[in-house]
Amino acid sequence: PTCPVPVPPEKLLARLLAEPASLDPKAIQKMIAHHTKFTLGRTRFNFDTLCAFLALAHSVRDQIIHSWNATQAKITNSGTKRVYYMSMEYLIGRSLRNMIYNMGILGPVRKAVEGLEQKLEDLYEKERDAALGNGGLGRLAACFMDSLATLDYPVWGYGVRYTYGMFEQQIRDGDQSEFPDYWLTWGNPWEIERLDVNYAVGFYGKVVITGVDDRGKKKKAWIPFEKAYAVAYDVPVPGYNTSTCLNVRLWSAKPSREFDLGLFSQGDYFGAIAERQKSENITSVLYPADHTWQGKELRLRQEFFFSSATIQDIIRRFKRAKKPWSEFSENVAIHLNDTHPALAIVEFMRILVDGEDLAFEEAWEITKKSFAYTNHTVLPEALEKWPLELISNVLPRHLELIFEINWAFLEHGVSKVFPGDVERRRCVSLIEEGFGRMVRMAHVAIVGSYSVNGVAAIHSDIIKADLFRSFHELSPEKFTNVTNGVTPRRWLLECNEGLAKLYETWLSTNDWVTNMSILRRLEEDLSNPDLFEEWESVKRENKVRLAKYIEQVCGIEVNIDSIFDVHIKRIHEYKRQLLNILSVIDRYDQIKRMSLPDRKKVQPRTIIFAGKAAPGYLMAKRVIKLINSVAEVVNQDQDVGDLLKVIFIPNYNVSVAELIIPASDLSQHISTAGKEASGTSNMKFAMNGCLIIGTMDGANVEICKAIGEENIFIFGTRAEDVGRKRDELRRGEIPRSARLSRVFSLINKGSFGPPEIFIPILDSISREQDEYIIGVDYPDYMEAQARVDATYADRERWTKMSILSSVRSGDFSSDRSVKEYAEKIWKVKRLTP
Amino acid sequence: PTCPVPVPPEKLLARLLAEPASLDPKAIQKMIAHHTKFTLGRTRFNFDTLCAFLALAHSVRDQIIHSWNATQAKITNSGTKRVYYMSMEYLIGRSLRNMIYNMGILGPVRKAVEGLEQKLEDLYEKERDAALGNGGLGRLAACFMDSLATLDYPVWGYGVRYTYGMFEQQIRDGDQSEFPDYWLTWGNPWEIERLDVNYAVGFYGKVVITGVDDRGKKKKAWIPFEKAYAVAYDVPVPGYNTSTCLNVRLWSAKPSREFDLGLFSQGDYFGAIAERQKSENITSVLYPADHTWQGKELRLRQEFFFSSATIQDIIRRFKRAKKPWSEFSENVAIHLNDTHPALAIVEFMRILVDGEDLAFEEAWEITKKSFAYTNHTVLPEALEKWPLELISNVLPRHLELIFEINWAFLEHGVSKVFPGDVERRRCVSLIEEGFGRMVRMAHVAIVGSYSVNGVAAIHSDIIKADLFRSFHELSPEKFTNVTNGVTPRRWLLECNEGLAKLYETWLSTNDWVTNMSILRRLEEDLSNPDLFEEWESVKRENKVRLAKYIEQVCGIEVNIDSIFDVHIKRIHEYKRQLLNILSVIDRYDQIKRMSLPDRKKVQPRTIIFAGKAAPGYLMAKRVIKLINSVAEVVNQDQDVGDLLKVIFIPNYNVSVAELIIPASDLSQHISTAGKEASGTSNMKFAMNGCLIIGTMDGANVEICKAIGEENIFIFGTRAEDVGRKRDELRRGEIPRSARLSRVFSLINKGSFGPPEIFIPILDSISREQDEYIIGVDYPDYMEAQARVDATYADRERWTKMSILSSVRSGDFSSDRSVKEYAEKIWKVKRLTP
Repeated sequence: PTCPVPVPPEKLLARLLAEPASLDPKAIQKMIAHHTKFTLGRTRFNFDTLCAFLALAHSVRDQIIHSWNATQAKITNSGTKRVYYMSMEYLIGRSLRNMIYNMGILGPVRKAVEGLEQKLEDLYEKERDAALGNGGLGRLAACFMDSLATLDYPVWGYGVRYTYGMFEQQIRDGDQSEFPDYWLTWGNPWEIERLDVNYAVGFYGKVVITGVDDRGKKKKAWIPFEKAYAVAYDVPVPGYNTSTCLNVRLWSAKPSREFDLGLFSQGDYFGAIAERQKSENITSVLYPADHTWQGKELRLRQEFFFSSATIQDIIRRFKRAKKPWSEFSENVAIHLNDTHPALAIVEFMRILVDGEDLAFEEAWEITKKSFAYTNHTVLPEALEKWPLELISNVLPRHLELIFEINWAFLEHGVSKVFPGDVERRRCVSLIEEGFGRMVRMAHVAIVGSYSVNGVAAIHSDIIKADLFRSFHELSPEKFTNVTNGVTPRRWLLECNEGLAKLYETWLSTNDWVTNMSILRRLEEDLSNPDLFEEWESVKRENKVRLAKYIEQVCGIEVNIDSIFDVHIKRIHEYKRQLLNILSVIDRYDQIKRMSLPDRKKVQPRTIIFAGKAAPGYLMAKRVIKLINSVAEVVNQDQDVGDLLKVIFIPNYNVSVAELIIPASDLSQHISTAGKEASGTSNMKFAMNGCLIIGTMDGANVEICKAIGEENIFIFGTRAEDVGRKRDELRRGEIPRSARLSRVFSLINKGSFGPPEIFIPILDSISREQDEYIIGVDYPDYMEAQARVDATYADRERWTKMSILSSVRSGDFSSDRSVKEYAEKIWKVKRLTP
Repeated sequence: PTCPVPVPPEKLLARLLAEPASLDPKAIQKMIAHHTKFTLGRTRFNFDTLCAFLALAHSVRDQIIHSWNATQAKITNSGTKRVYYMSMEYLIGRSLRNMIYNMGILGPVRKAVEGLEQKLEDLYEKERDAALGNGGLGRLAACFMDSLATLDYPVWGYGVRYTYGMFEQQIRDGDQSEFPDYWLTWGNPWEIERLDVNYAVGFYGKVVITGVDDRGKKKKAWIPFEKAYAVAYDVPVPGYNTSTCLNVRLWSAKPSREFDLGLFSQGDYFGAIAERQKSENITSVLYPADHTWQGKELRLRQEFFFSSATIQDIIRRFKRAKKPWSEFSENVAIHLNDTHPALAIVEFMRILVDGEDLAFEEAWEITKKSFAYTNHTVLPEALEKWPLELISNVLPRHLELIFEINWAFLEHGVSKVFPGDVERRRCVSLIEEGFGRMVRMAHVAIVGSYSVNGVAAIHSDIIKADLFRSFHELSPEKFTNVTNGVTPRRWLLECNEGLAKLYETWLSTNDWVTNMSILRRLEEDLSNPDLFEEWESVKRENKVRLAKYIEQVCGIEVNIDSIFDVHIKRIHEYKRQLLNILSVIDRYDQIKRMSLPDRKKVQPRTIIFAGKAAPGYLMAKRVIKLINSVAEVVNQDQDVGDLLKVIFIPNYNVSVAELIIPASDLSQHISTAGKEASGTSNMKFAMNGCLIIGTMDGANVEICKAIGEENIFIFGTRAEDVGRKRDELRRGEIPRSARLSRVFSLINKGSFGPPEIFIPILDSISREQDEYIIGVDYPDYMEAQARVDATYADRERWTKMSILSSVRSGDFSSDRSVKEYAEKIWKVKRLTP
């Protein structure tokens, strides 16, 4: 792309561009009217709530653009080291409220909107969640961007602009149905299309030799057969209470001329329109199904597209500063949020070696000092591997470089330290040998990075001791831990207005929003009954709000006095929603068999599930079906009444979570120990004064330590014992509990509909193959649930636990996490705001 | 869609919305800066020409929105009769310059832009032609909208927003290559997305009986199997020197939920994304290739989509006024620009009968008083027919209604007037019988309309006497003629600044822009040599400008003193580009065989072709190949030098036409007589003082009459003689001219490359099948061309002819055409501006 000459600052245009916008309600009203008329082309005859939302969003965006421009100029002019955070997902949720809070313009905006006879809350509701993420990794990236902006770190996010994002979940006959999430169909006011920022990204083709360098080494060039254009869409991220406004740059695929030529010259004009779509498909959906070869190829193309566009953009920016390559790593850190963007390492090498004429060794030294990698999973099936044949076809030059990197690593890195250790070489090689060789992307990421971290203490320990043990033995200094965090702006200040107000009143300050340790001062008031009363009333209001929503979307009335017992996250076997629903059947069975007087003593519960199953993950979809089948029976059972209700809230997303979390009494984080990396939502629940029932897994371990084990319901096998227990189970040494057997027989006899569909579920936890040791943990889990009931009966104790959970969770602010990243890993300094 | 309650005018928002925008240069500069910063998210570091264009376009659009809103309110409030003009095409071209001229803000805009150190003309060049049309019909619609707005008629245009429009033509190795025209990829500032205006359009499915009406007739309903949403995009059309701003509403297809359901519930999520694209494909391209069944179906879906959305929108607006259905035709006229939207008649009937519970007969009476139809072609292959089977599948209810309409027409309309005339019934039936029955869309349009017109006098005569003779005998009062016109704003004032200035100076007024008859005053100055000198200098400057463009895109230098001999229009056999290029070969051959002194006497010529061939029209593509092959040889021949050059300007569109027409000395309109409906570009050439060589076809006949036959080069067989000549040729009674035979032999011996590809061309004008009688007209054409050469040598005579062509072409302003439509056909009154 050509770079226009900047307009000199003394010129008229520069002066006009520098004019700041005004922030008072009248000015905001004028802007709303302006956007209604000119941007949306509407009149007073069709000024509806959607129009008001869009006009307000555009007005807020106008305000943001000032600080955004200023921040970008500041980063560039300061010449400071910058960080590029590459993430395949940003689970942003809605933005309007967040923007208004962070910019501190809630007062004037509310006044402006009310002056136009609209309700601000109605306008919030018109916004669609951005469909740019799937789970924890994506939400983490969004929390991090908020904290990084709030703490004035010079960081840019990079990602992909998915046209249809993840799917929209609907429940039909108890089954999950997937619909495209047309989140962009009606426009997205938060993105700024940057048509002037675009890069060609190649695919397929061949490698040619272009010459020989000084030292006699062949110089090569990749001639791609196909090209697509990556066009940038910038999403501003304003920090809280600071003028800093960071940027997330998302890439969208557009077809390129060169690409089309081949087909068009054969005269297949209409076929070529379809080819255009092929090119746009690169950024159609997040995580395209990869059980077919075509699907795998699409996913590889998507990841490379993301990696290549980002690296080209980073390099272009670096080269503008006219510094030598040797200074790259002092100026730039590139962070890989999981392995999806790991091809960036190889693409960076390719451009340095083939494009910038650096020697391979020199380029590799620069690379290894510039990249850092966060691992997010220990599940073997979630560790990305690409068939060699596929990479060879789609990215022939990159495969050559992977081989070259592997050779250098094994010869210089491994053999020198552990000479003759063939087994170790096999184990750490970037290439997995065997029938159908594979490239291990985690190994590429580890070898190409100077830092590898897990996302919770126990997870980082498992990485070092188990998953990447050989690598840890080779370079222990690379490995570190940074426990995840969540932003208290979205997850407390904004989503729990009542609690935020309580904190403001009791602490006489709002400083806790950026300094969560302040909350602990409230421990001094733990004997004050007023605090308890207010606390309970906040929770109750939140529960009332959620109950309204449940009635609206599920048509079920729930008991506000029941324990709101929440299990919301992706539906996955290791997260053990199955353990939960089996225990619900158990509870239901118990109640059914009770005498009427006994029933009076039962602690009422509302069990709330929400979460999506991957479209191709049949077992997870069966669990959804089981939950809904149980709900169908239980919710209509007159014997049970409001002692037990089972709710499945469809289409779990950030906005739904913001509604559920503040209203939860209890939340379940009951993964098989050792499987969950962090399970970061536990932090959100703790912050909102919700008690946790959980295993010693992921961040539960650290939360338990922070809030005190007396304030959390821990149960189940510890990570180090899981393997042994699984063996014992297999050998028949652990009998199935009688109550679980009874649950099985209830399902089998058709109490929750035709049992055939549930047989694979029950089989999956049979003695032979109970991978997630549900059978083992069942009795302990039931016992912990009994403790929950007993504790809840003692309202004072419960409320105290709730208060302590919240005030002691300050360390789980993502502000703490990003500070650790900045100081331990990236070595970057904060901007002066 | 829900209708929001309008904001009362006394409220704050209404007041803010009513604020007018300012028009002085400083205000425009502020707006440009505003859009640069906020709409485009740019800074002074990337303010390039594209950015300046987009920012200016948005600023101009802001100005337009005022008059647009005011006009719409005025039409609604006045309760006047309104016209809806339905056209499958709007060949708009670029808009920025047109908007600025029509709004009369050229002065302040130029000042504003120059103050920001940009050149207005550079900004114009950044705009892409809107790819919403193909040929004359589409350009006519665009000219009409300009005239209708200028004359303050209460008319709305309706059309389709094609994502890729027509193709972009490139010439590779002399062949036409087609590329998608990504005209929307970088955004379109002239459209206003109306997300609040959308309609479901159904396809496929079944017809169910829902009950019985008062008179015992079955009531029916169509249950479509598939639905797509039509979303409105409004394009404002400001009139010249008036505050009136009309609207063209274009429909874009978006997928609907209901539509997706079927597939999604089967769990085929990713397949369903493809289905979404199927739905969006409805508005992907203009005139999808229809040689396959799938292509036919797509085209039918596209036409119905357009028809249904438009009729739903018209009906919704009519019903808001709460008038009885019997008053519909007093309030509304719906114009069909060719048969593409003829399904609107049937959809209108369906909604009236099935949806509004009107009796069939009542509905049919209303329909017949509301629709009017313009025929644009007499070519049998261009008259739309749909296989019965296809309509039965895609639009089952509509087929039933077509049968019912046909029955009513044949029984009541035909048999009462011509009882027992079975042949006539067969001939006018909406259904073409035979193997593979077809629905004749022209017959649907004629039977359902109160007015049928042709687009030039001779064309309307042929319709009455030949094409629709039986219909004319049934209802002669329906048939009329309105000769096409072209807007003098775009086609003189804007594209020929020199000539416009000359007129302003010599007439001391600019009133001619809306009253072209004023131009004839210049005939008084025909003896003034100053006028001649100025006239020639204007032409020369235009030729210099075109020569620069030719050098830039074709790399060929042309002789400014040569006759610029132009043949620009769609490549089609009946338009006889072949006749032209054969004569060029002849001319080349003559020059080659001349002595050097003789060559000195040759009148130099530059033959300029431009035009697109339909992607599937192989014969037309071969003609392009022949033209380029001849050019290749001729342009490099030293013997010929600049005595003859052959130029094919690629990617013919409105903007290219605006460059070529003012620079032309001679233009060719040489269709086989009786084939061309109007060939409206002849009017543009005449207006710009370009002489015409042509047959007595289309509007040539009227142009000849208006400017005097001494000022035009007419040749060739008259329409009434073509059939006879064709027969004589077939019987061998017309020998091929010796010169044409020589041309054939030159091609056959490979003078212009391997002759194999040209054999089908030569075969097509062999004695047996010379459908377009090229062989018959050849000698006369050569003779006319010789007259051209001789006349051009007499510069005074030529210039006089040129002046007279221009000043006498006032009747071919589209202002005259639309007045006739308004008065003769639509019976609508002008708004008070």
